[in-house]
Amino acid sequence: MGNFAACCRGFWCKDKNPDVRVSLPAVCFVWQIAMIILFGLFVRYDEESDAHWSEHKHENNITSDIENDFYYRYPSFQDVHVMIFVGFGFLMTFLKRYSFGGVGFNFLIAAFGLQWALLMQGWFHSLDPADGQIKIGIENIINADFCVAGCLIAYGALLGKVSPVQLMVLTLFGITLFAVEEYIILHVLHVRDAGGSMVIHTFGAYYGLTISWILYRPKLNQSKNLSGSVYHSDVFAMIGTLFLWMFWPSFNSAIADHGDGQHRAAINTYLALSASVLTTFAISSLSAKRGKLDMVHIQNATLAGGVAMGTAAEFMITTYGSLIVGFCCGIISTFGYLVITPFLEKYMKIQDTCGIHNLHAMPGVLGAVVGAITAATASESVYGHEGLVNTFDFKGEYAERTPAMQGGFQAAGLCVALAFGIVGGAIVGFILRLPFWGDPSDDNCFDDEVYWEVPEDEESLPPILEYNSHMFGKNMSNFTVEQS
Amino acid sequence: MGNFAACCRGFWCKDKNPDVRVSLPAVCFVWQIAMIILFGLFVRYDEESDAHWSEHKHENNITSDIENDFYYRYPSFQDVHVMIFVGFGFLMTFLKRYSFGGVGFNFLIAAFGLQWALLMQGWFHSLDPADGQIKIGIENIINADFCVAGCLIAYGALLGKVSPVQLMVLTLFGITLFAVEEYIILHVLHVRDAGGSMVIHTFGAYYGLTISWILYRPKLNQSKNLSGSVYHSDVFAMIGTLFLWMFWPSFNSAIADHGDGQHRAAINTYLALSASVLTTFAISSLSAKRGKLDMVHIQNATLAGGVAMGTAAEFMITTYGSLIVGFCCGIISTFGYLVITPFLEKYMKIQDTCGIHNLHAMPGVLGAVVGAITAATASESVYGHEGLVNTFDFKGEYAERTPAMQGGFQAAGLCVALAFGIVGGAIVGFILRLPFWGDPSDDNCFDDEVYWEVPEDEESLPPILEYNSHMFGKNMSNFTVEQS
Amino acid sequence: MGNFAACCRGFWCKDKNPDVRVSLPAVCFVWQIAMIILFGLFVRYDEESDAHWSEHKHENNITSDIENDFYYRYPSFQDVHVMIFVGFGFLMTFLKRYSFGGVGFNFLIAAFGLQWALLMQGWFHSLDPADGQIKIGIENIINADFCVAGCLIAYGALLGKVSPVQLMVLTLFGITLFAVEEYIILHVLHVRDAGGSMVIHTFGAYYGLTISWILYRPKLNQSKNLSGSVYHSDVFAMIGTLFLWMFWPSFNSAIADHGDGQHRAAINTYLALSASVLTTFAISSLSAKRGKLDMVHIQNATLAGGVAMGTAAEFMITTYGSLIVGFCCGIISTFGYLVITPFLEKYMKIQDTCGIHNLHAMPGVLGAVVGAITAATASESVYGHEGLVNTFDFKGEYAERTPAMQGGFQAAGLCVALAFGIVGGAIVGFILRLPFWGDPSDDNCFDDEVYWEVPEDEESLPPILEYNSHMFGKNMSNFTVEQS
Repeated sequence: MGNFAACCRGFWCKDKNPDVRVSLPAVCFVWQIAMIILFGLFVRYDEESDAHWSEHKHENNITSDIENDFYYRYPSFQDVHVMIFVGFGFLMTFLKRYSFGGVGFNFLIAAFGLQWALLMQGWFHSLDPADGQIKIGIENIINADFCVAGCLIAYGALLGKVSPVQLMVLTLFGITLFAVEEYIILHVLHVRDAGGSMVIHTFGAYYGLTISWILYRPKLNQSKNLSGSVYHSDVFAMIGTLFLWMFWPSFNSAIADHGDGQHRAAINTYLALSASVLTTFAISSLSAKRGKLDMVHIQNATLAGGVAMGTAAEFMITTYGSLIVGFCCGIISTFGYLVITPFLEKYMKIQDTCGIHNLHAMPGVLGAVVGAITAATASESVYGHEGLVNTFDFKGEYAERTPAMQGGFQAAGLCVALAFGIVGGAIVGFILRLPFWGDPSDDNCFDDEVYWEVPEDEESLPPILEYNSHMFGKNMSNFTVEQS
Repeated sequence: MGNFAACCRGFWCKDKNPDVRVSLPAVCFVWQIAMIILFGLFVRYDEESDAHWSEHKHENNITSDIENDFYYRYPSFQDVHVMIFVGFGFLMTFLKRYSFGGVGFNFLIAAFGLQWALLMQGWFHSLDPADGQIKIGIENIINADFCVAGCLIAYGALLGKVSPVQLMVLTLFGITLFAVEEYIILHVLHVRDAGGSMVIHTFGAYYGLTISWILYRPKLNQSKNLSGSVYHSDVFAMIGTLFLWMFWPSFNSAIADHGDGQHRAAINTYLALSASVLTTFAISSLSAKRGKLDMVHIQNATLAGGVAMGTAAEFMITTYGSLIVGFCCGIISTFGYLVITPFLEKYMKIQDTCGIHNLHAMPGVLGAVVGAITAATASESVYGHEGLVNTFDFKGEYAERTPAMQGGFQAAGLCVALAFGIVGGAIVGFILRLPFWGDPSDDNCFDDEVYWEVPEDEESLPPILEYNSHMFGKNMSNFTVEQS
Repeated sequence: MGNFAACCRGFWCKDKNPDVRVSLPAVCFVWQIAMIILFGLFVRYDEESDAHWSEHKHENNITSDIENDFYYRYPSFQDVHVMIFVGFGFLMTFLKRYSFGGVGFNFLIAAFGLQWALLMQGWFHSLDPADGQIKIGIENIINADFCVAGCLIAYGALLGKVSPVQLMVLTLFGITLFAVEEYIILHVLHVRDAGGSMVIHTFGAYYGLTISWILYRPKLNQSKNLSGSVYHSDVFAMIGTLFLWMFWPSFNSAIADHGDGQHRAAINTYLALSASVLTTFAISSLSAKRGKLDMVHIQNATLAGGVAMGTAAEFMITTYGSLIVGFCCGIISTFGYLVITPFLEKYMKIQDTCGIHNLHAMPGVLGAVVGAITAATASESVYGHEGLVNTFDFKGEYAERTPAMQGGFQAAGLCVALAFGIVGGAIVGFILRLPFWGDPSDDNCFDDEVYWEVPEDEESLPPILEYNSHMFGKNMSNFTVEQS
């Protein structure tokens, strides 16, 4: 009987054996080699990146160098790139002992995800019918970064509770789902979503939350409490917050229509974000004793305005409309941290480490709704005839679409994003519950020790211990004698 | 009598009650709602951001897309944006226990300030006479960031000694004063100041110093000493320093004349900054025992060259002229930290937390003087006739102006900036002395505990205390017995 | 005899007197003044930066403003600038007590180096034969940043073991050698090396390693161990890593051919870097007990793909070729940290603090070889005739060169870079062994206390000491009595 219990216990321990020495390298190698083979079979440079450009130029009578300007879209790419790696990465360093995991695993899955995204998005959007190959250029690598963002959002809900192998699996499926969902929303439904309120934020957030729900850990936080921050880890997280906040206008405008669309997307996002900051500070102060601000709110809810402008930023939402959206989102998001996150954890069994429900899910849905309303109420008097056609791309087979219809399709797009997030998350969640992914035990959550060689903090500890033993050592032995 | 004393004491305590639970949310909400209303009444997209652009293009026979290129000025905007939020924000994280306040309140007032700046600057510079509305585009949001910089400089003098509510008031008035001052200097006097040596740095610094003078706290620093740094807070501040230093060429060139003016502004600023670094290291080393460098100097004085090139960067100051300016500024600024800041605090009763007198006031004034001299000595042989007209904008009603006259107007501009800074600072300072703004008592200055929920630093403290009590606990009780 | 020993010891101590109070300011002042004089004699604005531009425009019938667009190359400049100051600077903050020296001295030598680089590179590349003067513009300041990178790489090997004065000397000679080497490789041999695998990385790494070999310290690491990291210093270093990683596509494309060359360089680098991340994580995990990842690998080896694409990025190396290069480099570089760095230290007497042999030397050489092979196998079918001519610049006196010949010249370029690095490093190493440079004793290596005023970490230490003395103070005196 004792034997059987030990055996069970052994199985359980094996279940939560966070040793990834075989699995992590295996996954990295196999998937990277697969990427090399698939890129070899399918991916080529597009016209603008290929050395045949100068011949292409002659054939098409292009005289100006400006037609192939590198600085068209490339500055936007770099801003988005900073958001993905420094923004998301440092935003997740706030935990006192999970900063390595926050910034490090973010780095790992983003670097893998963007390769897989180039392929998946390429098959759906950039396939050259002439030779069946994907032609990539700068716009593809922006889109790959966007695609990765969805998985990084999902990681936010799971931060500290999963193994890097699980994250790689989450990313593989997440990118796949994203590409299909994006294809349906943007191409089949012909929905506008330049900054991804639906495609990126709603999908990513519900994908992560559903997985977190399935991986629920009832005994989390009962032992040592590592799920908080320390002073300097909060300052590190502000690096992430600020780079996300500053570059969000670039995020929402990066693939918007060149010309007035990009200008408008940047300005609207800039305004919504600044309004979010004020209402976040207001609610955070209002909710605490003596009006003390909470860093968690400042780090996250200030960004909600950017999420919520993902769809409508390129529309004529007006400057005050943008401010109103930011105003509401700051309130809703901070309120979410105060009330909804504890509620979700207690009653819905969803543990959401970074509070992505407040930063991405709610503002994302709100953004989709705002986008649908703004689209439905668009008129020629506001946009001009040509402006309306350009903004909503009412061309070709969509030439007959009216703004009201477009509003309906926008709403349908939101449903698709939600469905993909929840159903996809459920499936991937069950896959991640399999017992061989090396996830940590409840006691080891939020602790870098599990997956990282963590340096001893000699600066604070040993000098004092040494000092103590040096000063009291003699006396202590003295005592021992005395006491005996 | 005792009753009266208690009453007085009660009043005094109330006076320094740093509870902002009502006032901060109230100010944030009221002002954000006011912004929404004013934007609704007054702010519209400009031609390039409006969906009517494509029609406008046809009407004006514009064929090239390049006429509405987003990447004209937008990369400069992002660089300036990084300076405002990460640069200024992290530069103020150097205090050991005021990093949250440094980066957090910087975030709050910048986000509020830029909205108010869009309105104030809009009324003065971008009002469309046709419909009485402000038309905003990318250049307006660069200018709003510039405008905010003035208030953030002022915050540097007050860091750790004021409440967020006071900062919001300071910003409201600061932006208003800035917009008027800028209008007088740039439009009425027709002064050139692309990087804002006068308009931004001189004004901002004297505005902040005057307020600090009026809010003088005689008993500051007599209790616990929180006005210094710790090792890692100094490294955080270097993030701010470096982002300011790197992007300063973008700051000074962001709104300079497109073409040769922008090139020159970037190159001159780049050179001046690099010379500042060398002389800062030299003086810092020279002034200390064993030549040890002081992080305060490296964090701040290295930037003085950028401040001092704010006016002259777009002129033909020559490459070696830029180096000379940077050379002098590094010396003056470091010398300021060593001698003038202590002097100001002791004899002038000006407490300047970040040393903005050394980084912004002196280099700003110097920059204005250098600009005036460079303008006064400009000649057609150096600039070419057309170059002279373009650089100083000697067109329209200013067609008759000579370089010598321009030099005089430049000097007049400096006086205006000084007057606005000092007089405006005095008025706002008295407003901020009113007893209901929630500023901290002298004992609580430089302490985030007052306005923030600060996490306990469990990583260093408890294990040792535990260890001690574990080892010595028994013996101590032993002692107590022994002693009695 | 005792006297003689004391005298010797005195000389030795003087030998290792790290007081730089005279030497550092002297070097800074003298060299900065020399720069001002040399700039005054030799450096002028180029055509695009000079106020005569508008006249030049008329003379040459240039009608479009786009011909002098600031945003051509300037965004690349800013990305490279961030890599030099924040990237390299923060990458070197990983040591527990040398973060000031890492980021601070990086700042000092980069700021000096870029001035000297403008002169040296100007004499070789930008000399105007008409008036014997150097004409500088935006492209020159990008190149100056590149040039400085070589010296910063060399600093990586010496981090913590040299004085700032030695670093200034290293930089003066390093820039000089770089400019000559670059001239020979790029102009005499007509080798393509846009991202500097040879010119920057191979040269810089062997220059630093040779100096480190000559400055070998046999007794290093025998006393207190400061050569490791602490938790937060590792997070700081990740700032450096990520900014290098993100902006490396800009680094390799900054001075590539405008048009398809720049696009290709960015895409190839982006792909190689992402593959490096996966193999770095794989090998790091594979090599440690329980699969624990090592921050040193993640901070450094993830960047190896960017180094190795320095030459071939602008060629038609194909997307999967880039992935393969990144794949191999991640493995080699991580393997280097595990095996080769300890080997070099033990058997070759080369102490390499940051492991530049793994991050720059090996990937640099590999990149040169990959570049030579890719060049040698280039064909008209892949590039098109015009594309081949443009990519390899087979024009003018090089019109007869074939790809195969070009491959040979590329290989010759690698030899030149190696020769300059090793021979130059040997000479400079012997200069730096002279006893008056103020380098620290072995005991003081990796310690900021030597050259910086380091703030006391009051937050962790004193409360506990106070607590102890408070609680045990009385009892201790008691003891003393008791014991006597």
